[in-house]
Amino acid sequence: MSEIDFEKMGGLIPAVLQDEDSGEVLMVGFMNSESYTMTLRTGYATFYSRTRNKLWTKGETSGNRARVVSAATDCDRDTVLLRVRMEGAGVICHQGTRSCFNESVPVDVPAASEGAAR
Amino acid sequence: MSEIDFEKMGGLIPAVLQDEDSGEVLMVGFMNSESYTMTLRTGYATFYSRTRNKLWTKGETSGNRARVVSAATDCDRDTVLLRVRMEGAGVICHQGTRSCFNESVPVDVPAASEGAAR
Repeated sequence: MSEIDFEKMGGLIPAVLQDEDSGEVLMVGFMNSESYTMTLRTGYATFYSRTRNKLWTKGETSGNRARVVSAATDCDRDTVLLRVRMEGAGVICHQGTRSCFNESVPVDVPAASEGAAR
Repeated sequence: MSEIDFEKMGGLIPAVLQDEDSGEVLMVGFMNSESYTMTLRTGYATFYSRTRNKLWTKGETSGNRARVVSAATDCDRDTVLLRVRMEGAGVICHQGTRSCFNESVPVDVPAASEGAAR
């Protein structure tokens, strides 16, 4: 637990949830040391709510819990990637969708780089 | 641009980079409004370094740039997911790996939930 760098962002790290099967990125939440420890010990993603100032386990009321299959941290040890399988209805977003990332943002791709995909 | 909630975290949002082809989560960085705008306008992932207090474009020296294929924000509009194709040597981590998430973290999966994958 102590190997994660929580100090860089005032006690919090971003946690990325990725669907184990589809590879889809489902959501990003924040964890403090306590919710991170709880996540690893219970096997269910638990976050720290910055707006409500409390811990919350994903799906604690809806039943749509995110069961952690595997976890990894990055080279800076200041973020965590959780590969999960959704339980319940399989939706992670309060809007009823499989992923929270549903709002497309337009990107200006320079014409010169078109076709130079690799 | 103004539709992103930068205020929630003191001017920054986490940005998740995901490989467009493999679905692999490559890294998480932070963007301020300026680097976010630059990312969308140039089509290359540009971050705000919290430790160096400056903007940096991924691969600006190595050539391993992350070309943005598509972008989406989430239901809270406080994080962004970028699907990218790596250029150059195709490695994103300064340690020379395809992804920055290489440090496995053990998870205690309760015995009762074994086999209850869905």
